[in-house]
Amino acid sequence: MYLLSQIAVASCAAAAVLEAGKKRYDPFGMIVVATSAALGGGSIRDMLLGRPVFWVHDATYLGTTIVAALATFGLARLAKLPAKLFLLPDAMGLALFTVTGTRAALVMDAPWIVASFMGVVTGVMGGVLRDMLCNEEPVVFQSTLYATASWGGALVFIGLMQLEMAPGNAALIAGSAIFCVRLAAIRWNIGLPQFYSK
Amino acid sequence: MYLLSQIAVASCAAAAVLEAGKKRYDPFGMIVVATSAALGGGSIRDMLLGRPVFWVHDATYLGTTIVAALATFGLARLAKLPAKLFLLPDAMGLALFTVTGTRAALVMDAPWIVASFMGVVTGVMGGVLRDMLCNEEPVVFQSTLYATASWGGALVFIGLMQLEMAPGNAALIAGSAIFCVRLAAIRWNIGLPQFYSK
Amino acid sequence: MYLLSQIAVASCAAAAVLEAGKKRYDPFGMIVVATSAALGGGSIRDMLLGRPVFWVHDATYLGTTIVAALATFGLARLAKLPAKLFLLPDAMGLALFTVTGTRAALVMDAPWIVASFMGVVTGVMGGVLRDMLCNEEPVVFQSTLYATASWGGALVFIGLMQLEMAPGNAALIAGSAIFCVRLAAIRWNIGLPQFYSK
Repeated sequence: MYLLSQIAVASCAAAAVLEAGKKRYDPFGMIVVATSAALGGGSIRDMLLGRPVFWVHDATYLGTTIVAALATFGLARLAKLPAKLFLLPDAMGLALFTVTGTRAALVMDAPWIVASFMGVVTGVMGGVLRDMLCNEEPVVFQSTLYATASWGGALVFIGLMQLEMAPGNAALIAGSAIFCVRLAAIRWNIGLPQFYSK
Repeated sequence: MYLLSQIAVASCAAAAVLEAGKKRYDPFGMIVVATSAALGGGSIRDMLLGRPVFWVHDATYLGTTIVAALATFGLARLAKLPAKLFLLPDAMGLALFTVTGTRAALVMDAPWIVASFMGVVTGVMGGVLRDMLCNEEPVVFQSTLYATASWGGALVFIGLMQLEMAPGNAALIAGSAIFCVRLAAIRWNIGLPQFYSK
Repeated sequence: MYLLSQIAVASCAAAAVLEAGKKRYDPFGMIVVATSAALGGGSIRDMLLGRPVFWVHDATYLGTTIVAALATFGLARLAKLPAKLFLLPDAMGLALFTVTGTRAALVMDAPWIVASFMGVVTGVMGGVLRDMLCNEEPVVFQSTLYATASWGGALVFIGLMQLEMAPGNAALIAGSAIFCVRLAAIRWNIGLPQFYSK
C-alpha cells in the first residue's frame, strides 16, 4: 500500500512536469508545480479535517516527488515523452488517493457525504492545483469521468464499509472500480453530458 | 439564522454552476466548483483561525450545496436561467457570511483589524475560488462595492459590538447595511475609483 | 528582525498593488491581493505545519500590509511608480521569508527536505498566490533564480545549523546568500535551462 502510494505520487509529479513543460518554467518552479500536483489534494484534505498533514513528518513523499520531477525533467530534455505514458499510473493514483482520502475522513467520524467528498478532494485537487498553477482550466473538471469515477468509488467504499466488510477488501473493490471506470472512459471516450451556455 | 445560511450556501452554489456553465465542465466538476464557491470562504477562515472547519461535521451544508448545484444544472439544461436571479440571495449571502466570519474571529480573540479581514475572507473568498477554478479574473475584485461593502459591514459590526450592543442586533444592523449597499451599488452601478496602469 | 520582516511584508504588498494595477481591480480587491501576496506564503506554511497562523494574533502584519497597499495605490494614481523600485526589498523579503520559514519547520522537527521546502513555500507562495489572483502565470516559476535561490539558501541554512552554528549567524549567512544570488541573477539575467515543449 505504501509502495503503491509512492508510485502514485511519483507519477502525479511526472505528469505535472510534462504539463508544466508547456510553460516556460524553470526546474525549481516545476518542482513546486509537481509537489502541488502530487501532495496538494491530500494536504487540502488533511487541513480541512484538522489532521497533521501527511507528508510533513515523513520525508519519503516529498523526496519521491522531487526525484520523480527532476528525472522527468531530465528525460524530457533528451527525448519526447508521450503524455499517455502516465495515464495508467495516473488512474491508479486516482483510485488510491480517493480510497485513502475517504477512509481518513471516516476514521475522523465525518458524515458519509463529507467523507465521500474528502475522497474526491484527495483524488482530484492535486490535478486542479497543477492546472491553476499553470494558468489553465482544470482538465479534471472536463475530462472523461474523472471526478465522477472518484465520487462513485468513494460511495462504493462507504457502502461496503457500512456492510461491515473489512477495510482492506472494501478498498480493493472500490479502488479497482475507479481504476476500471477511468480506463474504460479513456478507452471509449465516455463522458457525462455537459452543460455549456453561450 | 441556520436556515438563512443554508439559503445563502445554496444560492452561491447555484450562481457558481451558471458561471462554470461557460466552461465545458461535467456535472461532477461543477459540484467541485460549486462547493468551493459556497463553502470555500468559510473553510479558509476556519483553517486560518485554527478552528474545526464548519461543514466537516455537519453534513447539511455539503448536502445543500450538492442538491442546489445539481438542481441548477438540471434546470439550466431545460431553460436559460438569468444570472440576475441570484443577485438578491448572493447579496444576502455576502452579508451573512461577512457577519458570521467576523464574529467567529472575535470569539477567538483576534484583533479587530484581523477580525474584519476574516469577515471579508468569509464573504468574498468563495467567489474568488470559483473564478480561479474557472480560470477567470475574480469578478469580486472588480465589481461594484463587493469587497468594499463586506469590509465596511465588518467594521460596523465590530464597532457596535464595542459599544456593547447585543450580538444579534449588531449582526442585524451590519448585515442589513452590507445588503443595502450592495443592492444600491448594483442598481446605480456605483464603484470606487480604479487604478489602471498601462 | 521584526522590523525587517515588516519592511518585507510592506514591499510585497506594494509590489502586488503594482501588479494588480494591470487589472481593473478596485482598492478593496487590491487589498485582498496585497494581503495574499504578503502573508499568503507564511499562512500556507503555518497551516501545513499545524501551527497557529502568524498574523492572526498580531495585528501589526495585517496593518502594515493594508497601509502599504493603500499608500502604493494612492501614489500610483499620482505618479508612475517604476516596478524596479521594489526589486531590492523584494529580494530581501525572499531571503527573510525563506530563512524564517525553514527555521519554523526545523523547530517542529520536520525532516530537512521538508524544512527546506517549507522555506521555499514561505518565500515564493505569496507571489504565486498574487499571480493566481490576477489570472497570470506565476512569474516566480519563470524568472531568474527565484525559487532556486530560495531553495539553495534554505539548504545552506540547514547545513549551517547541522554544523551547530548559532541560528542568528546561520540565518544571516543563508539570507545574504539568497539576497546576493537573486540580485546577481537580476543584474546579469541568469537563469536555469528551461524545458519547453511544443
